[in-house]
Amino acid sequence: MTITAEQVRQLRETTGAGMMECKKALLESAGDFDKAVDVLRKAGIARAEKRGGRDAAEGLVESYIHPGNRVGVLIEVNCETDFVARTDEFRDLVRNLAMQVAAGGADYVRREEVPAERVAKEKEIFAAQMEGQGKPANVIEKIVQGKVDKFFSEVCLVEQPFIKDDKVTVGDLIKQSASKTGENVVVRRFVRFRLGQE
Amino acid sequence: MTITAEQVRQLRETTGAGMMECKKALLESAGDFDKAVDVLRKAGIARAEKRGGRDAAEGLVESYIHPGNRVGVLIEVNCETDFVARTDEFRDLVRNLAMQVAAGGADYVRREEVPAERVAKEKEIFAAQMEGQGKPANVIEKIVQGKVDKFFSEVCLVEQPFIKDDKVTVGDLIKQSASKTGENVVVRRFVRFRLGQE
Repeated sequence: MTITAEQVRQLRETTGAGMMECKKALLESAGDFDKAVDVLRKAGIARAEKRGGRDAAEGLVESYIHPGNRVGVLIEVNCETDFVARTDEFRDLVRNLAMQVAAGGADYVRREEVPAERVAKEKEIFAAQMEGQGKPANVIEKIVQGKVDKFFSEVCLVEQPFIKDDKVTVGDLIKQSASKTGENVVVRRFVRFRLGQE
Repeated sequence: MTITAEQVRQLRETTGAGMMECKKALLESAGDFDKAVDVLRKAGIARAEKRGGRDAAEGLVESYIHPGNRVGVLIEVNCETDFVARTDEFRDLVRNLAMQVAAGGADYVRREEVPAERVAKEKEIFAAQMEGQGKPANVIEKIVQGKVDKFFSEVCLVEQPFIKDDKVTVGDLIKQSASKTGENVVVRRFVRFRLGQE
């Protein structure tokens, strides 16, 4: 079993334990990172707080609270350097995205995040709406697919039309910003609270 | 099967469908609320958006973004009336709670929300730390319980010492506010984003 310097470095960063302790823990856990953290914690060496593996990601955490405090949004948008994160261009983008989530009520960042069961349920409902209209199956399938696409464009942030300019999608807006700043720009996550609702 | 006026009212509020349509849908679903919503959606009558059952809850959604935009918090605190929600007393409380979550890094509102597996894992780690110290089992058990209590007071918002006055817990602070405003005050939920971390 060979433990790399990189593994040791990551474990040190996560746990705050010494280099030799980290190496020993990794050997004991056969290189399994999470187990090595537990080993160190059991030995009373590691900090309890677990840090994520993406410390290097730069960007901004921003919020938007709609006047009246009944709707609020928290969003994290990543870029590659702290320098870009502090530009007006990036700050404006993040503010616009937070406002978009508040107004547009997206549930997901992108299509890939929508659970398959939710898509299946939507399809079932759309198909049921088509029943008894005497349309051929291939036409129904096309219409249902169109409705599913519309559903995605409603629940996925990057597919929504931008609230301040509906000629572009939010995804376009992000791409524009990425090309202006010369960095990869990614909406990592967001949450939206509406008073008294799930 | 009897459908009550209250069931019809709730379904109308959720779906925006007419009274008779709601009654029919509820009869068809044998009184099952979620199924009735699906029935109305399949009939193309209901709005797709599902509203929660707690529309009546008042309070505020508030955020706190730590300078530098690397840590942010979104919180919902409920009270009973909009009147109290708009008082300075309540607003101050909510602002303090958002700041507390940002600084104190709670993972849960209260003990009951901590998953049993997480508690079990902490216990296991604490017990392993005690091993080989030659202490009797009942002493170990007491020490482990003490450590578990300390763990709760670190991860549960209402058990943390208040950051602006550590002689009181956050729970005390909420109780004081509840007794001043004369209303039940409940931290409903919060999220905390830290840049680049889970």
